[in-house]
Amino acid sequence: MKKEIPYKIYLEESELPKQWLNLRAFMKKKPAPLLNSQTLQPMTQAEMEEVFCSELARQELDDTTPYIDIPAEIRDFYKMYRPAPLVRAYCLEKALGTPAKIYYKFEGNNTSGSHKLNSAIAQAYYAKEQGLKGVTTETGAGQWGTALSMACSYFGLDCKVFMVKCSYEQKPFRREVMRTYGANVTPSPSQTTEVGRKILAEFPGTSGSLGCAISEAVEAASQLEGYRYVLGSVFNLVLLHQSIIGLETKAALDKYGVKADIVIGCAGGGSNLGGLISPFMAEQLEGKAKYQFIAVEPSSCPTLTRGKYAYDYCDTGKVCPLAKMYTLGSGFIPSASHAGGLRYHGMTTTLSELYEQGLMEARSVEQTKVFEAAEQFARVEGILPAPESAHAIRVAIDEAMKCKQTGEEKTIVFGLTGTGYFDMFSYEKFHDGKMQDYLPTDEELSASLEKLPKI
Amino acid sequence: MKKEIPYKIYLEESELPKQWLNLRAFMKKKPAPLLNSQTLQPMTQAEMEEVFCSELARQELDDTTPYIDIPAEIRDFYKMYRPAPLVRAYCLEKALGTPAKIYYKFEGNNTSGSHKLNSAIAQAYYAKEQGLKGVTTETGAGQWGTALSMACSYFGLDCKVFMVKCSYEQKPFRREVMRTYGANVTPSPSQTTEVGRKILAEFPGTSGSLGCAISEAVEAASQLEGYRYVLGSVFNLVLLHQSIIGLETKAALDKYGVKADIVIGCAGGGSNLGGLISPFMAEQLEGKAKYQFIAVEPSSCPTLTRGKYAYDYCDTGKVCPLAKMYTLGSGFIPSASHAGGLRYHGMTTTLSELYEQGLMEARSVEQTKVFEAAEQFARVEGILPAPESAHAIRVAIDEAMKCKQTGEEKTIVFGLTGTGYFDMFSYEKFHDGKMQDYLPTDEELSASLEKLPKI
Repeated sequence: MKKEIPYKIYLEESELPKQWLNLRAFMKKKPAPLLNSQTLQPMTQAEMEEVFCSELARQELDDTTPYIDIPAEIRDFYKMYRPAPLVRAYCLEKALGTPAKIYYKFEGNNTSGSHKLNSAIAQAYYAKEQGLKGVTTETGAGQWGTALSMACSYFGLDCKVFMVKCSYEQKPFRREVMRTYGANVTPSPSQTTEVGRKILAEFPGTSGSLGCAISEAVEAASQLEGYRYVLGSVFNLVLLHQSIIGLETKAALDKYGVKADIVIGCAGGGSNLGGLISPFMAEQLEGKAKYQFIAVEPSSCPTLTRGKYAYDYCDTGKVCPLAKMYTLGSGFIPSASHAGGLRYHGMTTTLSELYEQGLMEARSVEQTKVFEAAEQFARVEGILPAPESAHAIRVAIDEAMKCKQTGEEKTIVFGLTGTGYFDMFSYEKFHDGKMQDYLPTDEELSASLEKLPKI
Repeated sequence: MKKEIPYKIYLEESELPKQWLNLRAFMKKKPAPLLNSQTLQPMTQAEMEEVFCSELARQELDDTTPYIDIPAEIRDFYKMYRPAPLVRAYCLEKALGTPAKIYYKFEGNNTSGSHKLNSAIAQAYYAKEQGLKGVTTETGAGQWGTALSMACSYFGLDCKVFMVKCSYEQKPFRREVMRTYGANVTPSPSQTTEVGRKILAEFPGTSGSLGCAISEAVEAASQLEGYRYVLGSVFNLVLLHQSIIGLETKAALDKYGVKADIVIGCAGGGSNLGGLISPFMAEQLEGKAKYQFIAVEPSSCPTLTRGKYAYDYCDTGKVCPLAKMYTLGSGFIPSASHAGGLRYHGMTTTLSELYEQGLMEARSVEQTKVFEAAEQFARVEGILPAPESAHAIRVAIDEAMKCKQTGEEKTIVFGLTGTGYFDMFSYEKFHDGKMQDYLPTDEELSASLEKLPKI
């Protein structure tokens, strides 16, 4: 007899995964290596260590070890907010009248409000282990900066955050959360770095971009004794840490004998989606199961659906390594009308390669439709989603409605990456009917893609 | 052998309490009855029903039934966010270097962000059962209004919220959360009610008060066909619903063989504290155990520590019943420098009577000390507390530090009622060194208490 499935499946603390899953180890054709932006040769461990913590550099370069132990100190921190619940969306199913079974993995049950903490605590731990004084980073919507400030506070590390200026101004309360955790927050571009001053001189009125904030954070780390740069998405080391999302999700489903048909996640740089799908994709790559994977991105920043698979710069200042990825060009900045995160111009190399191989689908969705889904979900499931997470909700609802038409009882699993408490500014625009959709024109995209480096 | 205690104790869904505990039924000397503000006679069921939902009126008047069944529909909703975790504060203990064992019941794991949802969903359910179209209410800091809007959205009820004007203006994002759940939010005092217009005429620049918003909400309900007034604290029916906090806490402790020595909660109107202590106090009243209970209130609104035990009005417009309670006088408004909630002039009759009988202690704390505790807690335990909740943290830390001096290994349990995401305005003041403490002078309190009704 099958066990009755509760509203929320909580794994026991003892069931918390003891290893992360390194998805690249399961791929026959690996993602292309990072290249040194000066020499255009594959990055070496030594070169990586100039910018990144040693152990994190090792993890970034390791595409063969399938499982990597999670240190006990990180597991202890995880225990404060993990295992995260896998929720059966009974109320949403009922509201939709769908025969589909919908599950979501909720990662917003921690003060940083998102899944970003899973990697932040790991990166802070390795920085501490290396005897560093502090770390620098960038943040856009603010979730990563918040998570990192919490993690650094826990390990007693200094934390310097470059926050994209428009977000710094629109979200003063995000900044205050970071200050509560003792972080130093600077609006980017700033006068504190050479690259910041250069950008400000060229574009005096700029409201900043993620690519620019990355360059500033990298420069700041290089100028300070005992500091390294850390980052919250795009790199494979982040996907590695985020695999805990997928591992818990799969363990919870397995516990109740449930097999997913569709796995859906929102995709900005790709950390949450990559983490969620990791164990499912690994199983599929081993020929043991078959799933439908869907990456959801904003139509205002359509990296997978309208970008190009090519080597590109990861940041505006071109100080980071080059990555072969789906990209809109490192100069691409989404319309100012775009709400929330998911505004990075590229996509992590692993997901880019999987998409190129046809192992994953991608959909782009317009933000008014995203906020409609967010509100519908909030009203029945009781969780106020972040705009980023609501991209996955949108497609989960769309897929559930298809099941209603066909009568199929598919099992849909999606990642609910975080809460929207600091995004009410955008919700307000939506409520007041002032939210607009903006799709970049073909000409805009072509102009941006023309500037890709010739490699 | 004792089981090792995890960071978070989650009860199973099947362990969710099936009944609320009615603390008054365990008291030999009961709280004094509510009086009709016109006749000064005890309120009857019929009189109560003019303002309140019938079943809620029955619950308010029932001081003899020890346990009351939780309807299945309410339990289903509870399952979306309950049982709530009881957290062992290992990290805080370590940071303090105390031999004390600290536990906190975390009620912030739902989108409304606080314990208020426990009663909101119950009240919305009974309103729906009665066939009402909608409900009206007041909200100060905004937690109750948010919770009620979620609950009404779930049951398809209309929800009209009168939000104290200074809070409405300071917390636009709270308002947007309520709008996301479909509520109608009006700043109080407003021109939409007679009592609002009267107060605005008398005090044109007023930033509002809870007592005034209550009067407006009661009047609005009486003017609308199919509406009743509901409220989030002070009344015993709310304590009844909030007993779920204490019942789960006690069940979780019992499961691990842990006996609490001190139980601490913040106290505004008294709903959270009353709910938390209910099963412990019931046990003590039955002579089966002994606990130290501590109510923590802001020194800027010192109801228990500096108020008077007397009959008083519950609202500014004097439309609600009179209650015998510890009060600062219904005209008392805490200093504008006071952050967050806990600003009500009175205290629920049950807690007032228990305090009067010497069964509970009370402490008042200054807000700069409260925010210090909040930040210290956030940095090690990873949860950003609401200012209200941080009152309990302050005293829990103080008690733990006493244990450090004496070497006692006391078990301290406190209620962490909610999260502070919408209170970053106050955190910012604290970070910038602009937060001040304000204690009402003896003269101010005397002037307010002189106006108590002569009963």
